[in-house]
Amino acid sequence: MSRPLTLLIVGSILGGWPMRATVADEGMWLPTDLPAQALQAKYGFTLTEAFRTKLMLASVRFPGASGGFVSPDGLVVTNHHVGGDAIQKLSTPARDLMRDGYYARSRADELPCPDVELNVLQSIEDVTARVTAAVTPAMTPAAAAAARRAVTSDIEKDSFTKTGLRSDVVTLYQGGLYHLYRSKKYTDVRLVFAPEAAIAAFGGDVDNFEYPRTSLDVAFFRAYENGKPARVPHYFRWSAAGPAENDMVLVTGHPGTTNRLETLAKLKHRRDVTLPYDLARLRAYEAALTQYSEQSPDKRREAANVLHGVANRRKAFAGQLQGLLDPAVLAQKEAQEAELMRPVVAGLTPARPDGALTDRYPGTAWARVAAAQRNLAGIERDYALLERGDAFFSDLFPVARHCLRLADEVAKPNPERLREYRDSNLDSLKLTLFSPAPVSRSLELARLTAALTFLAEQLGGEHPAVAKILAGKSPAGRAAELAVGTKLADVAERKRLVEGGRAAVEASRDPLILLARLIDGEARAVRKKYEEEVEEVERQAYAAIADVRFKAFGKSVAPDATFTLRLAFGTVKGYAVDGETLPFCTTFGDAFKRWEVLEKREPFTLPPRWVERRAKLDPTTPFDFVSTADTIGGNSGSPVLNRAGEVVGVNFDRNRHGLVRNFVYTDTQARHIAVHSRAVLEALAKVYDAQPLADELTAPPPETP
Amino acid sequence: MSRPLTLLIVGSILGGWPMRATVADEGMWLPTDLPAQALQAKYGFTLTEAFRTKLMLASVRFPGASGGFVSPDGLVVTNHHVGGDAIQKLSTPARDLMRDGYYARSRADELPCPDVELNVLQSIEDVTARVTAAVTPAMTPAAAAAARRAVTSDIEKDSFTKTGLRSDVVTLYQGGLYHLYRSKKYTDVRLVFAPEAAIAAFGGDVDNFEYPRTSLDVAFFRAYENGKPARVPHYFRWSAAGPAENDMVLVTGHPGTTNRLETLAKLKHRRDVTLPYDLARLRAYEAALTQYSEQSPDKRREAANVLHGVANRRKAFAGQLQGLLDPAVLAQKEAQEAELMRPVVAGLTPARPDGALTDRYPGTAWARVAAAQRNLAGIERDYALLERGDAFFSDLFPVARHCLRLADEVAKPNPERLREYRDSNLDSLKLTLFSPAPVSRSLELARLTAALTFLAEQLGGEHPAVAKILAGKSPAGRAAELAVGTKLADVAERKRLVEGGRAAVEASRDPLILLARLIDGEARAVRKKYEEEVEEVERQAYAAIADVRFKAFGKSVAPDATFTLRLAFGTVKGYAVDGETLPFCTTFGDAFKRWEVLEKREPFTLPPRWVERRAKLDPTTPFDFVSTADTIGGNSGSPVLNRAGEVVGVNFDRNRHGLVRNFVYTDTQARHIAVHSRAVLEALAKVYDAQPLADELTAPPPETP
Repeated sequence: MSRPLTLLIVGSILGGWPMRATVADEGMWLPTDLPAQALQAKYGFTLTEAFRTKLMLASVRFPGASGGFVSPDGLVVTNHHVGGDAIQKLSTPARDLMRDGYYARSRADELPCPDVELNVLQSIEDVTARVTAAVTPAMTPAAAAAARRAVTSDIEKDSFTKTGLRSDVVTLYQGGLYHLYRSKKYTDVRLVFAPEAAIAAFGGDVDNFEYPRTSLDVAFFRAYENGKPARVPHYFRWSAAGPAENDMVLVTGHPGTTNRLETLAKLKHRRDVTLPYDLARLRAYEAALTQYSEQSPDKRREAANVLHGVANRRKAFAGQLQGLLDPAVLAQKEAQEAELMRPVVAGLTPARPDGALTDRYPGTAWARVAAAQRNLAGIERDYALLERGDAFFSDLFPVARHCLRLADEVAKPNPERLREYRDSNLDSLKLTLFSPAPVSRSLELARLTAALTFLAEQLGGEHPAVAKILAGKSPAGRAAELAVGTKLADVAERKRLVEGGRAAVEASRDPLILLARLIDGEARAVRKKYEEEVEEVERQAYAAIADVRFKAFGKSVAPDATFTLRLAFGTVKGYAVDGETLPFCTTFGDAFKRWEVLEKREPFTLPPRWVERRAKLDPTTPFDFVSTADTIGGNSGSPVLNRAGEVVGVNFDRNRHGLVRNFVYTDTQARHIAVHSRAVLEALAKVYDAQPLADELTAPPPETP
Repeated sequence: MSRPLTLLIVGSILGGWPMRATVADEGMWLPTDLPAQALQAKYGFTLTEAFRTKLMLASVRFPGASGGFVSPDGLVVTNHHVGGDAIQKLSTPARDLMRDGYYARSRADELPCPDVELNVLQSIEDVTARVTAAVTPAMTPAAAAAARRAVTSDIEKDSFTKTGLRSDVVTLYQGGLYHLYRSKKYTDVRLVFAPEAAIAAFGGDVDNFEYPRTSLDVAFFRAYENGKPARVPHYFRWSAAGPAENDMVLVTGHPGTTNRLETLAKLKHRRDVTLPYDLARLRAYEAALTQYSEQSPDKRREAANVLHGVANRRKAFAGQLQGLLDPAVLAQKEAQEAELMRPVVAGLTPARPDGALTDRYPGTAWARVAAAQRNLAGIERDYALLERGDAFFSDLFPVARHCLRLADEVAKPNPERLREYRDSNLDSLKLTLFSPAPVSRSLELARLTAALTFLAEQLGGEHPAVAKILAGKSPAGRAAELAVGTKLADVAERKRLVEGGRAAVEASRDPLILLARLIDGEARAVRKKYEEEVEEVERQAYAAIADVRFKAFGKSVAPDATFTLRLAFGTVKGYAVDGETLPFCTTFGDAFKRWEVLEKREPFTLPPRWVERRAKLDPTTPFDFVSTADTIGGNSGSPVLNRAGEVVGVNFDRNRHGLVRNFVYTDTQARHIAVHSRAVLEALAKVYDAQPLADELTAPPPETP
């Protein structure tokens, strides 16, 4: 078989991974298709049924992130930055838990979080046949989307009625496979332990996506049921030793989004349209939030979490863009796509003699994805600004929109509702909506000013939506009107509106409710267009591509990440960069060294407690380590396990070489980064006087009945 | 005369300024048309010929900024941030003048700056007739531009030959008036005194464009001639008392750019295209520079000046955009334009019955400006990225381009050259080009990576220029190749190339030279298009508009700012904001108060010397003050004078309410901000042990011969 020329280029830059199936430690594997063979072959590790069960039942999903049960009493580990929002919301000017950390010395001291929901996957059912049967080739995209929405809604509802468990139909392989996931939900979640933000995020946004790192990015929460600590049958014990170099590790968690199975046209659209837009937006928000948080220590505290989130995404997207702008990466994708298309187009006559394959064969699924990108180009900014809400970046606009839409949507039959208002999602929605977390009016003002300005920059001052939204004022003037005038910071007002239904919402003169109504028509219209002309077209095309891929490779290629439970595996090892070899782990000593070299300036200030206890700490204690396992955003808080299923680390980041992993896996330099389990035990015992918590983690398992 | 309805809206928001001529303290006045009458009428101040002469001969132009002679021995005051680049370049890791400040205790200690050029205006000649006569209505825009270039080049050359003085033909009223300015040049400029950056820019980018302020943003340099301090016949004496509330002040300096006489179409283009693009670019640079400077104290020092410049422009442009997005501002402009057009269109039959006036009367000068904006829209990004150099944001790319172009351009007759290579500019160009200031390779790498990424974001990965520039690499990879491979950091190499001429440049394999050549064709082509299809069209149209305006108002409307010498005047007074009244000045005590309230964190850290000497300082000493005088960027370093022509302050900023002044003057809240002359004397004496410098400032004038 002759290989396209482009491949020759690739090898020299990316270290040369082959065109098909997976290599090395690639893969975020479904619980239903764990890579037992690969683990046996490469690591001599036998994946037992018991291990599989524990992976599923001891892994915990945070919204958009990961964690795991680490004691039979519902103790959950995750990252400090995953729990950051909750920790922030439990803080007051008088009790700054972000700055000072927190340790509950008794169960009674564990602090209930206002709006944290944890989910634990209980079962998986393949519902592909039922979902695909509902859609026939004769249907228009709109009809197909509606039919699929109806059938998934039915499946979810049936399941919920039958089991009482949260039920979600999950789309895999971009529409090649549909699974029904049932989860147990915990909404009484309490804070047990958080270190100071200064050590949890030592190096802050400077060190984000960098290695070597020296951060204690962990936090412990406890799930409660009926006012008591939840008794959980499956949990991961804590390893006192942690990993050594070259150990195999397994990473369990909820990787969010990868784009490895996307077509070339989609990736080019991301490179040329989506990512540049998102970067422009995030940089605009970041500049505004930085300016805000520098005004006073209080404002800094208020904005910290939002700012970190924005800076984090900005850096991640910048890394992704670098990856897509690397011609070797796209050449690789192009070659893979050509090979996958080969059997499909073998019998076809090209419609055009030259150009991209999708131009030559316009009827193929790949060409349909390309066509969807052209549709997308026409509506993407409107969609992002008006429907995704980029133009209204704030805490309270989403609240206003939910109040408005909830009243309209619950009046409709369940399958016809917008996804977020279906019965299966209502409880979670209300948890967020009625969160008593305080809202800073001045931060809302700064965010709305930045967002409305960005809106005008993107669409121009003459755009009808801009004129409508600004309503005769400058962005700053309009933001002031909204942020000062709204009463939605008050949870009682939100409840009044939701309970009062459509009549109450229609009577409301709240400026944010009025704004949400003002643009609801445009927002819904562009969402409809997006769902029908982009999402649905892509979904059907990708389902066809998935079939081609299944035929060629079976399920030896893992589906793209979807915020659902996955298992990755890899080897603990360092790597070389710019001629320097970085070790597989850092130490406590390294943290103190960097603190001194970087002149103890933010974000390289150590908390007072660490400085005071320095002499008590063994400087050789491993702090953070890296492995080759295949992770992505959403894996934050993922337990890293050894062969015995014990927690040897808590994943919290990737290095910058790993940012390209959205599109391709590489282990040349790409690594994920985890806190070493020994670092946690040492810090709990010697810095935080939290020996009881360390004991709970390492206690021998209770007797099996 | 019936007034358009739109005016009614305006008054309520902007405080209602009238449609024509100037009000209050509006105006950046030409030395040839000083507002003697207004000063007499409003302030009872008589502008003498002697005062006029001193204004011209004691005002000093820094590149893009202002200053003034303040002793007969060539001592010059300006802002620390104006001298920042020079101070930075005189710094080394061992001698950090930005951090520690500097005071030359003797003339021998005054530090020669590698590349500072000062200009002092000597005479002004009206050459409008000669310039306009060279252009005939029959000429194409290209021919007209060439003819005007030729005649201005001749005028400048004749003048230079005759006088030996730097000679520039200055375009005023967007082309309504041409003046020949002759300047005396000083290139041996030495640093005398600079405070620590921490107090010069106390509050840093947080306080930028804000008031109340407490910054000592001053620096002193000395002009030398023939190795000795320049003896200057005119200078401003330093006032020991400084201004009191409600005093009249005069501000002399070089305001850079205002857009008050621009047409509505031009302003809308700025609002919808130019400013959003520039903001996106600056935010991209800012994010990259912030990330860079946080990596280590050394990197922070290296990047400080560039980062401040970027953040400053970002904030200024954001304020301008807010202004243009204020419908009241545009309504005002629309009404003014309609009134100015009225006599012009009175006899015309509308080509279209409705729409904007420029659509109804497509032949008018205003419509031609609108048409130029449509031309601009098609080339603006390419022009900015490739020719202005946004895609190559660095110190060394401009060097490479100059080496390349200089070789080509000097071979041409003077008037045919690109402006910057005409004989009259060559000395200044070489001063910059051969500056021995060190260049940080790692900062170049960070800047180029950000810029090349921004290029790809803006034009997309498939754009031929992007593909050509990236040359098969990712932005980061390409930047590394350029920043590591270039030898242009070495001044000897630059000299070798410039002296070797075209042969040397053609033989060079320097990656930056190769890059400059690679895109020179595209860059020159887009510049040509820009100059012919936008600049020239606008120039001719604005000249016609200027004629209309001269007929209506004479020269009672000052021309837009052009980085040439202007005089503004105003009243020292505070203002109210959000119900709070801000005083006309701050005090030393306020600085210490803010330092404490803001927890002594950057950028609110006081230098150790200030902390140590706190007890010696009178906390009631005035620090910074505000007045209503009409200033803009470029006025940085402007001497603020009292009726006696003494320096009572040094202007260094506007407040954020003043950012809209690019487009409209208002004194409702808008103020410029200056360091109080007493603050400087107190600090020199009590903090810096620099009594001799204070004495030089306040010495009685030497005997008049």
